[in-house]
Amino acid sequence: MLQNDLLLRAAKGEPTERTPVWLMRQAGRILPEYRQVRASVSGFKELVETPALAAEVTIQPVDLLGVDAAIIFSDILVIPEAMGLTYEMIEQRGPHFPKTIESKADVDAIRVAQGHDLDYVLKAIQLTKTQLAGRVPLIGFAGAPWTILAYMVEGHGSKTFSKARRFLYTEPALSHTLLVKITESTINYLKAQIDAGADLIQLFDSWAGILPPAQYRTFSAHYLRLICDALKAHAPHIPVTVFAKGAFFALEDFAASSCDVIGLDWNMDIATSRLQTKGKTLQGNMDPCLLYANQETIQEEAEKMLRAFGSKGYIANLGHGLYPDTDPKNVKFFVDCVKNFKHEAHTQI
Amino acid sequence: MLQNDLLLRAAKGEPTERTPVWLMRQAGRILPEYRQVRASVSGFKELVETPALAAEVTIQPVDLLGVDAAIIFSDILVIPEAMGLTYEMIEQRGPHFPKTIESKADVDAIRVAQGHDLDYVLKAIQLTKTQLAGRVPLIGFAGAPWTILAYMVEGHGSKTFSKARRFLYTEPALSHTLLVKITESTINYLKAQIDAGADLIQLFDSWAGILPPAQYRTFSAHYLRLICDALKAHAPHIPVTVFAKGAFFALEDFAASSCDVIGLDWNMDIATSRLQTKGKTLQGNMDPCLLYANQETIQEEAEKMLRAFGSKGYIANLGHGLYPDTDPKNVKFFVDCVKNFKHEAHTQI
Repeated sequence: MLQNDLLLRAAKGEPTERTPVWLMRQAGRILPEYRQVRASVSGFKELVETPALAAEVTIQPVDLLGVDAAIIFSDILVIPEAMGLTYEMIEQRGPHFPKTIESKADVDAIRVAQGHDLDYVLKAIQLTKTQLAGRVPLIGFAGAPWTILAYMVEGHGSKTFSKARRFLYTEPALSHTLLVKITESTINYLKAQIDAGADLIQLFDSWAGILPPAQYRTFSAHYLRLICDALKAHAPHIPVTVFAKGAFFALEDFAASSCDVIGLDWNMDIATSRLQTKGKTLQGNMDPCLLYANQETIQEEAEKMLRAFGSKGYIANLGHGLYPDTDPKNVKFFVDCVKNFKHEAHTQI
Repeated sequence: MLQNDLLLRAAKGEPTERTPVWLMRQAGRILPEYRQVRASVSGFKELVETPALAAEVTIQPVDLLGVDAAIIFSDILVIPEAMGLTYEMIEQRGPHFPKTIESKADVDAIRVAQGHDLDYVLKAIQLTKTQLAGRVPLIGFAGAPWTILAYMVEGHGSKTFSKARRFLYTEPALSHTLLVKITESTINYLKAQIDAGADLIQLFDSWAGILPPAQYRTFSAHYLRLICDALKAHAPHIPVTVFAKGAFFALEDFAASSCDVIGLDWNMDIATSRLQTKGKTLQGNMDPCLLYANQETIQEEAEKMLRAFGSKGYIANLGHGLYPDTDPKNVKFFVDCVKNFKHEAHTQI
């Protein structure tokens, strides 16, 4: 059914004719076509909550950049909202929660979300699948429970997330109660995404890197493992990616989990990561700032990266989302560099 | 001459009766006594630039917290200022440079600072040494050239420092020209700090963790090595500490340099770091958020850390600066936990 299933084969460690490529935040502000759609609505949330528009901007980078996958246009903060904690997206500043989690009563008042609570995302997935008509796979996603807790407690982005981290130290039991609720909500939500048509699921642990290793294992990696296991029980053929930014210390934990793909940020050394994650496909890990360089440098660095990862078990991507002021011409050039590069093993397929 | 030289002996890997302890940002907003002095002046910079007041707040944590070292109250941004790029410190927001580095002309206009350009810091060091009267050693410090460049190009703090990182990709030769000037200025400055009485020098690479490993080696670790070598040639008996936050991937590079002590943030695993830094003393790496916990937890975690680091070649500290809203009672409790803990090897001295 899929005309291009490179992403799914690479995720499963199967041979491919070339390395698949997509980019985190490929649907978004770097594209003038996105900004035009964004200007037609009142705000970011309206775009996320309007399936026809979400589908439109999801497909834009497939048309414009030629990437090997679409990722549904949404936000990790739809989960806390479905659990009863509304967020606002403030232009130039990021998310803001008018009410945050501080006490046992706050945690008790939060409900476990069901898949149908996020009907607008499921509709956007169905619509996107129809409109993609099998051109490339569609990636569904959610935030890791720790990252979601961090926002629910802190109330907004932060350099240190010291309020959220304080909560883990002062309220460990309550933290786990909340993490269990987020985990259950996320499992319900991701199962529904798969049922709606998502071909691969990615978990984003954006704030993994601010926890000490032991605390990360207890308060984050554990719940990621539960989610991977639940998704595998629900749909064994759907690959699952874990991308925990900054959690270089947890790669071996992820390798021991039931996920298929592990995302690497640009701090992580490729050879070391390969050793620590045997049997898993890797994704990443180009510095998003490379795309500010001239095309000669972009090509050189892209090829160096492709050679280092090898011909199998690799999905090309950045080590984090595209920065909004990146020139789309350079983004497309990077995508083309990956698509034009052939390992010897590729040519034999 | 020093009544308490635990820090210096530990830095050199010599046996000590107990583990020495001090805390990054121990002189500062956590102490009401500091806030009182701070309120008596017009701003942070006046405090930094007034030797009598800088000395006073430098000594406060020695009296109030009982730490084993003082660290001169100053800022890493005095170096760009001495090179011709003035900074402002904006309350609640952090540093701001009205003019930033963008072009070759900007780099050419920047001068190499001499030690005497920062006379007010040298006077503060001399005054502090006199007033400490040998109670504990005094730590001098500077920023790593990469971190200083990051501020000079970006102009202010940033989550991504994408403007500074773009500069490395688009202007690599100019970046090196600037880094050489910063390195020379820093060497002049730190030699003068040693001559003024600093007993140990620490280099802070606050933004180490946002560079890919290969880029970090070229644009940062290289210059840190030059500084360590120059200081060792100037004063072989003065220990040098390198603390590069987030640069877990560079520990082996630091181990191969002439520094004596390597600082660890709270992401870095103790056993792994020991293996990668054989022959060097380590410093850190408690999560600053631990000090929000109850005292039972603080003691448990502090002792776990002390056991993991062992009895020699270790200086207890946090993995980053104290957060300003930490309760000074908990800070003192943590310091006392370290001071009261004895490894078996300690009791035999």
